[in-house]
Amino acid sequence: MSTASASASSTSTPPPRGFPVEEFETRTANAQKAMAERRIDAMLLTTEPEVRYFTGFQTLFWLSPTRPWFLVIPASGKPVAVIPSIGDSLMSSTWIDDVRVWSSPNPADDGVSLLIETLREVAGDSAIIGSPMGPETHIRMPAVDFDHVRGQVGASWVDTTDIVSGLRMVKSENEIAKVAHICSVVSDAFEGLPDLISMGDTEQQAFAKFRIDLLQRGADDVPYLVGSTGPGGFDDIIKAPTARVIGDGDLLLFDTGSVYDGYFSDFDRNFAFGSADDEAKRAYDIVWRATEAGFAAVRPGATTSDLWTAMMQVIDPTVASAAATGAGDTGKNAVGRMGHGLGMQVTEWPSNTQTDGTVLQEGMVLTLEPAMTWAPGKMMVHEENLVVRADGAEWLSRRAAPELPVLG
Amino acid sequence: MSTASASASSTSTPPPRGFPVEEFETRTANAQKAMAERRIDAMLLTTEPEVRYFTGFQTLFWLSPTRPWFLVIPASGKPVAVIPSIGDSLMSSTWIDDVRVWSSPNPADDGVSLLIETLREVAGDSAIIGSPMGPETHIRMPAVDFDHVRGQVGASWVDTTDIVSGLRMVKSENEIAKVAHICSVVSDAFEGLPDLISMGDTEQQAFAKFRIDLLQRGADDVPYLVGSTGPGGFDDIIKAPTARVIGDGDLLLFDTGSVYDGYFSDFDRNFAFGSADDEAKRAYDIVWRATEAGFAAVRPGATTSDLWTAMMQVIDPTVASAAATGAGDTGKNAVGRMGHGLGMQVTEWPSNTQTDGTVLQEGMVLTLEPAMTWAPGKMMVHEENLVVRADGAEWLSRRAAPELPVLG
Repeated sequence: MSTASASASSTSTPPPRGFPVEEFETRTANAQKAMAERRIDAMLLTTEPEVRYFTGFQTLFWLSPTRPWFLVIPASGKPVAVIPSIGDSLMSSTWIDDVRVWSSPNPADDGVSLLIETLREVAGDSAIIGSPMGPETHIRMPAVDFDHVRGQVGASWVDTTDIVSGLRMVKSENEIAKVAHICSVVSDAFEGLPDLISMGDTEQQAFAKFRIDLLQRGADDVPYLVGSTGPGGFDDIIKAPTARVIGDGDLLLFDTGSVYDGYFSDFDRNFAFGSADDEAKRAYDIVWRATEAGFAAVRPGATTSDLWTAMMQVIDPTVASAAATGAGDTGKNAVGRMGHGLGMQVTEWPSNTQTDGTVLQEGMVLTLEPAMTWAPGKMMVHEENLVVRADGAEWLSRRAAPELPVLG
Repeated sequence: MSTASASASSTSTPPPRGFPVEEFETRTANAQKAMAERRIDAMLLTTEPEVRYFTGFQTLFWLSPTRPWFLVIPASGKPVAVIPSIGDSLMSSTWIDDVRVWSSPNPADDGVSLLIETLREVAGDSAIIGSPMGPETHIRMPAVDFDHVRGQVGASWVDTTDIVSGLRMVKSENEIAKVAHICSVVSDAFEGLPDLISMGDTEQQAFAKFRIDLLQRGADDVPYLVGSTGPGGFDDIIKAPTARVIGDGDLLLFDTGSVYDGYFSDFDRNFAFGSADDEAKRAYDIVWRATEAGFAAVRPGATTSDLWTAMMQVIDPTVASAAATGAGDTGKNAVGRMGHGLGMQVTEWPSNTQTDGTVLQEGMVLTLEPAMTWAPGKMMVHEENLVVRADGAEWLSRRAAPELPVLG
């Protein structure tokens, strides 16, 4: 039964689940160091990835919008959890010691007074309190309650998006191993897709088959699966599947964010059925080569904007040149960027845009996602995943075929 | 091929996807009527179910936290969408005419100025602007941006949670048909579970098998699946599955929110493996009978608190009596309530609690979810789904076995 081998086509061995306690200690210490530099006395976190990052608390229960969950990072010491009692058992099984609970839902006071009391105790009355309130964040509690808390405690509230994004953008080897594993599972599935999906399937049937295949190959879940089919192409790349039947001459795009142990893959593949016209093949070739160019530009010290420029030089050299002369934001496509960070969420900071300018560091996990509109109403999007290493990029997804695959 | 029949054990026929335009017109008109009563000039919506409810815009793309999405309900006329250009094609395919887009992500101005301009145009400079800011809601945009928008436009901002919840709590027949269908699919899967999962499976294997089975039976997705196994019971009912092997004497709980066309089921089943002790059987019997009592109490005009009382009288008559004399909030379990609304989200308003007091109306879809701690560290939770009809409740889930099933 030696089916598992080191060959490129076999599924990788799943890495261990969870993290050693030291990893949460390091994350917390790094946050506290950044907080100290800005004299922040406590940081309030309210969303699933923020709470999971510092605690290891992992549950799908977040899908229920009813109950708010809070984590308070003090200036020193372990984080303090202020959560609904339904999470007591699970949170108490993490490295967190101080778990304060209330019986939720309680619309009259859904953890608000317990949170205020905790912030006062941890940070004092005239504290500077931080919370991620900037790009790609939101506060996951009723706005009325957040306004009330801000009015009751803290001399000032500051945006700490940069602290959280700065930490989360650079992945540990344990995190990278989880992303690498799910990327390998999805690569297997994409390579097997020609035997799975055929003309005559509806979009809905094709989506269902692919989702089931991903689970059978070892994905924990497939929270993100979007795509399109269309005669010769399509311009909507985020819609739910329809009853449309895949036919001769169609293009198909599948883009999935699948999950292993709370970490995502996020890449896509394009296929043609029966035949493909030369324009579509040419568009595929351009975004494929743009991805190569983006990959070649990756090194610590380069920026996300360097990756954007490298890809744009393949897609449209005129736009890339205009951008280099500071001609403002140019070359925008409907996607709005050409790749992004990846990890605990299907998209994370940073963005590969003309102006983002985030400096790449070892351990950053990114997607490259060049897109182009190659004919009216026809868009081609390609996406791969990589990790930034000392000497350049390392693929996490297994590279797509260099020419548009034509099936059936 | 007459495999489809009206028998209780066959999967129901999937109802049509989507909604007729009239349904969106009615939802919008009803919101505008409620807004007019409170002199609200415009309502800002930012979350997936809120935007989908008024537009039909359905995509998993919301999973990406990067881009905010806005919908403005004016005092009259169709809603106005203010969204990233990646959603232009899909939003333009809905009944919405006025779709305003910007190229996102753009951290310097991620739709903020376009939103402010739209609100000013739609509602005027000294407007009263509403947004859901109360229980079970959040604002899905950076808090810094929301603060800025509130400072730039609107004489006052008011909480409109009641308007949105009031509409969404009462389902149309089209909505009920979607919930009924996914409940039937999940009922089939739970009835087939004894042939699917056995001692020797790990929790992770059992979860994977069940998730795949649900998809094969016609669920679009299984966004919510939590559960536990343990020797004779467990106290954590929301955790992710582990490598623990299911053995003789274990109890197993599976609780799933599966989806058809954007509408959820949410119910659970308990099973014993090999054997079950009398205490566990007794706990199962109590929560099963509590569910019957809750079901019998459902009628238009009764309240969610009446359902709580009916269930509590079976679980603990002393607590139910104390509650009847106004002895404050009593009989709390870790779950915090005994059921809730259900529809576009796995949990919605209202809550079946002692004090919630929401008056039941025809068309409300609810879960009944009595829970009890029957021994230290041992919890039993049961859950079914129903719709409120003129003459009482109608099951949407197929009723669980009256005695704890013992498998293997």
